[in-house]
Amino acid sequence: MEDIFTSRIFKVVRKFVVGRSGAKLARDVIVHPGAVVILPLLDDGQVVLLRQFRVSVEERLIELPAGTLEPPELPYETARRELLEETGYTAGSLVEASHFYSSPGILRETMHLFVAKDLIAGPTNLEDGEDIEVFTVPLEKAVDMVYSGEIKDSKTIIGVLWYWNSLRNKT
Amino acid sequence: MEDIFTSRIFKVVRKFVVGRSGAKLARDVIVHPGAVVILPLLDDGQVVLLRQFRVSVEERLIELPAGTLEPPELPYETARRELLEETGYTAGSLVEASHFYSSPGILRETMHLFVAKDLIAGPTNLEDGEDIEVFTVPLEKAVDMVYSGEIKDSKTIIGVLWYWNSLRNKT
Repeated sequence: MEDIFTSRIFKVVRKFVVGRSGAKLARDVIVHPGAVVILPLLDDGQVVLLRQFRVSVEERLIELPAGTLEPPELPYETARRELLEETGYTAGSLVEASHFYSSPGILRETMHLFVAKDLIAGPTNLEDGEDIEVFTVPLEKAVDMVYSGEIKDSKTIIGVLWYWNSLRNKT
Repeated sequence: MEDIFTSRIFKVVRKFVVGRSGAKLARDVIVHPGAVVILPLLDDGQVVLLRQFRVSVEERLIELPAGTLEPPELPYETARRELLEETGYTAGSLVEASHFYSSPGILRETMHLFVAKDLIAGPTNLEDGEDIEVFTVPLEKAVDMVYSGEIKDSKTIIGVLWYWNSLRNKT
């Protein structure tokens, strides 16, 4: 395994696998430090969402608050920090619900999903280069936005469906 | 925008955004041709899943059948081909349910979700380097595997929860 490209947030490493034919096959893998996504739930059942321009897809996407891990910071700490920076909310309760891989065919990125409750509003603190609008909708409306295609971001789809389903069918 | 790294399946391009401070900020974006994921449903309500070693995370993951787009092939054609190659099933009905971005913070990859029904079994045809075991579980069991953490792959979580929820709450 060798590093063959290094960027600000991720790097690319070349690994080798042996195929069923016996051939040695190169597989380039993108290595990312991991990230958190936060489902912030207000006391009245509304969920806090962001509209954010994403240069990768050249679109404004509707997303849950999220951010990249900055080791040695723990996922819990990243979630608390990003929720505060992006939305201004401080969470009285912040619980990791799940974690999953974003795109394991090519990318080593673990995403940690947190559910944030008992929220107290305050000022945001955006990084330079972040262009974020905060808004709230009832959770059921967020589910509708998944099915209508308005929400197209995987981690947000998972956060919304995971929690919605856990309320109604699975606990 | 310039290409700064090219691999077999993806490349990295450098883009620039202007921050609120006026500073010009480099943003490296991974560009992927896009992919499909297929939720294959047997007539008795079982879903077809794979166990597959993923070199990116060095784990065997439980996933729905999936594969990378090979333009000019259409997503529908990729879905039909990958379903057949990986599971041996031919779909009488193959419908795109949704599409979403895997990890838009760094990655331009659109994932197209197809629901496959009226399945007819046949032999698989794996690529060299693919190490895949096919199995089936009831859809409700697949939902349980999402909540237990046995299923950790984003596209599979979305496929399973999307369909489960559409049956029970939203259509």
